[in-house]
Amino acid sequence: MDRDYLHRIRHAALRERVVSADQAAGLIRDGMVLGMSGFTRAGEAKAVPMALAQRAKHDPLKVTLMTGASLGNDLDKTLAEAGVLSRRIPFMSDPGLRAAINAGKVMYIDQHLSETVEQLRTRQLPAVDLAIIEAVAITETGGIVPTTSVGNSASFAILAEKVIVEINLNQSEHLQGLHDIYIPTYWPTRIPIPVVTPESRVGFPFIPIPPEKIAAIVISEKLDSSSTVTLPDAETRMIAGHLTEFLKNEVSRGRLPATLHPLQAGIGSIANAVMHGFIDSPFHDLTMYSEVLQDSTFDLMDAGKMVFASGSSITLSAPKYADVMGRFQDFKSKLVLRPQEISNHPEVVRRLGLIAINTALEFDIYGNVNSTHVMGTQMMNGIGGSGDFARNAYLSVFVTKSLAKGGRVSSVVPMVSHVDHTEHDVDILVTEQGLADLRGLAPRERARVIIANCVAPEWRDAIADYHDRAVLRGGHTPHLLEEALSWHDRLRRTGSMRAE
Amino acid sequence: MDRDYLHRIRHAALRERVVSADQAAGLIRDGMVLGMSGFTRAGEAKAVPMALAQRAKHDPLKVTLMTGASLGNDLDKTLAEAGVLSRRIPFMSDPGLRAAINAGKVMYIDQHLSETVEQLRTRQLPAVDLAIIEAVAITETGGIVPTTSVGNSASFAILAEKVIVEINLNQSEHLQGLHDIYIPTYWPTRIPIPVVTPESRVGFPFIPIPPEKIAAIVISEKLDSSSTVTLPDAETRMIAGHLTEFLKNEVSRGRLPATLHPLQAGIGSIANAVMHGFIDSPFHDLTMYSEVLQDSTFDLMDAGKMVFASGSSITLSAPKYADVMGRFQDFKSKLVLRPQEISNHPEVVRRLGLIAINTALEFDIYGNVNSTHVMGTQMMNGIGGSGDFARNAYLSVFVTKSLAKGGRVSSVVPMVSHVDHTEHDVDILVTEQGLADLRGLAPRERARVIIANCVAPEWRDAIADYHDRAVLRGGHTPHLLEEALSWHDRLRRTGSMRAE
Repeated sequence: MDRDYLHRIRHAALRERVVSADQAAGLIRDGMVLGMSGFTRAGEAKAVPMALAQRAKHDPLKVTLMTGASLGNDLDKTLAEAGVLSRRIPFMSDPGLRAAINAGKVMYIDQHLSETVEQLRTRQLPAVDLAIIEAVAITETGGIVPTTSVGNSASFAILAEKVIVEINLNQSEHLQGLHDIYIPTYWPTRIPIPVVTPESRVGFPFIPIPPEKIAAIVISEKLDSSSTVTLPDAETRMIAGHLTEFLKNEVSRGRLPATLHPLQAGIGSIANAVMHGFIDSPFHDLTMYSEVLQDSTFDLMDAGKMVFASGSSITLSAPKYADVMGRFQDFKSKLVLRPQEISNHPEVVRRLGLIAINTALEFDIYGNVNSTHVMGTQMMNGIGGSGDFARNAYLSVFVTKSLAKGGRVSSVVPMVSHVDHTEHDVDILVTEQGLADLRGLAPRERARVIIANCVAPEWRDAIADYHDRAVLRGGHTPHLLEEALSWHDRLRRTGSMRAE
Repeated sequence: MDRDYLHRIRHAALRERVVSADQAAGLIRDGMVLGMSGFTRAGEAKAVPMALAQRAKHDPLKVTLMTGASLGNDLDKTLAEAGVLSRRIPFMSDPGLRAAINAGKVMYIDQHLSETVEQLRTRQLPAVDLAIIEAVAITETGGIVPTTSVGNSASFAILAEKVIVEINLNQSEHLQGLHDIYIPTYWPTRIPIPVVTPESRVGFPFIPIPPEKIAAIVISEKLDSSSTVTLPDAETRMIAGHLTEFLKNEVSRGRLPATLHPLQAGIGSIANAVMHGFIDSPFHDLTMYSEVLQDSTFDLMDAGKMVFASGSSITLSAPKYADVMGRFQDFKSKLVLRPQEISNHPEVVRRLGLIAINTALEFDIYGNVNSTHVMGTQMMNGIGGSGDFARNAYLSVFVTKSLAKGGRVSSVVPMVSHVDHTEHDVDILVTEQGLADLRGLAPRERARVIIANCVAPEWRDAIADYHDRAVLRGGHTPHLLEEALSWHDRLRRTGSMRAE
């Protein structure tokens, strides 16, 4: 293996720091705060956390784990089952860890993804003791070249006392040159972030740290997990169709150019399907300024519809991964990966005027959106970047299927059981039934538009009846408080929102 | 009166446009969208809207009224009673208008104050037909010099087809030079907003428009209404004390300098009292980057504690107004008034790292804040700028007294009845009972801190009991859905949250 990796550690003195994953995991002590690479199942450190979980079997310890976002390779599951996690920040999507969080065994801090390093830098979160970063290579000056995600890796490495680098030999060397690492200047001499288009390159192609901070280097070979995104289905195609029609109308009214504005799409099957729908749209020369680049990004590029995409990670299905990595040089000039602080930064999101498309778990008749909590109590995955984008975008769109659980659950409810995006921040709601344009409407007007356009037919009478009776009681935002959450409570008790 | 005003219209040809308020109001037609100056009872156009309300008595008409924020001189009341308002955007605080809104008679769009002109500029709101702007003077080139507020006046005047200017002879000519009018560049060539400190001056001291757009000039003399802020009382002093102690601790831990970060304070008695509390603090060389500058700003300057304040309006009590305007030249170098788009801009708020202090109507055990809706249904005033600041501030603080309605209402509840600021956006909660620091805590941890520190003693057992029973049912954010809003429902039915 020696010859395979030596050229990836271009700072020659650092080659002496190569150790086994077990040895590197030995640097981790009970109570430490770990800052680990990994964003939407892409580019996470793999060997050291697995070694840590193994070690915990005979040497129990607890750590706070911060990452960019969710991890692949069942790492969150493995670490949760090993009892290693006392605290997890800021996003996860693993069922095993989710169960531990909902049982109150792991303290989970569900943060806007742009904010974690801001709070670290200002010491509002506990300091990172050790950063563990997957890399393609280490440069001549000791700079770390990330792999398929940047996430929070740059700030973790800069702020941590020590850094462990995992050189992954199966991550393509062609990834070098893809990244743009920019760290905002520090208060009180903060200046504007110079990103003015999705294409702007404003930083370094590596994470610049003093090489002496690199305490250990581990050689790994495990691939990223594949995306779990499912193919578009009839309903997601209808959602995409409604949104495309709406955007065509905006173009014809002169509110948007035919190139639209830069697009952001949340992770998951529905957002991916919506993006996929743009392949058959009349829009052209599209750009993305998003957090995760999924299969649809590359399909849009291959279809000649998309000219540039900025993200913080690349998360693909297995066949798409093989395809994209096989001809990565063709894509590289059309891509940039940034720290999630920059990909999701309120300043840049507002400046670029994004069209932000994110998935709702449920929304209510007044336009409040729940992205995180099933029945108001059970954490699903976390808010992720949806708040960073929705709050500051030019157009804030939320999509969901109108029904869940085989029709026992309506995704449109009288009152959401948890609010992640308030009525003040939501412009457009889309289900397979249709689209509600809430811009410039008062709550009572929104309710009529949402009920008419977004609710599944079998739920429409019940929700209209709720609203009618609430209006009789009055108020700017009419509600029947004794009944507002009764659909969720019935679901909890009976497994269905339907009245018995 | 001729000699009094001619020197205030320095563009000589425009002097011919001077007409009576009735004549100017004659330019308003049924169905128009009006963009009017006025922000937190400061600097609103006065003569023309009063003439409009008079005219409506014999010539009924309906308009959409957009302003900066709330209006003084009972204008919202008068216009609502005259039946002139079909739609009102984005903030109000008048009881008469409030009643019409809650009855569903006036459609009220409750927006973040930084967003209205952004939506206007991109034609996502109906275009402004006519702008009505109070001014100190008109410059040689036809530029409009605003009075005690900027609000949305600059964009209204720039975007409207025609402009009516009210020259108010009782607004001090010393206000000239106070304003800094900067309009962001337009998409797709948007560049960073160059404000990097509260003191930054980046625009014009007047609103630059082609003079031919000024269709009429009206001479007025009515003063701004006085602020309705009440003096600090024992409880608001305790709130200020808790926050000062917390900030002193942050300084001693090295997280904040003794000059703190730029301060933002919401309008109203509690926030004003909290700011007043800094007079007796050890902090020094304070700055503000806020929307409304109240009595406390000038008291802090007189006490030598504050060196600069940026806002969008100046709203003072009657004695403070006389005092400040009497020696305005002493203050002018320490003040700037900006468009509310800039005073509240997410980009600048995050860059400057504000300490944002806003008032909650109520908050819940997990840190969600309700700023707008009594019992989840009745609009109070609107969200104002609190979301602009809370979402992007360095430190997002919400303050309230723990009790309302003579103790029949607890301001800390199991679940808020309306969410304006989500758990993701709230850092610090303060009542006269104490302070809860939520940073880095999971929901169950937040609940313990909030219950221990913020709840009035007579409500503590009931709220702790709710949380204990909810935890038995489990979840990341434990709730009893069938009971979560029962306190509000009981208040609605019986006038008290207390169990019968």
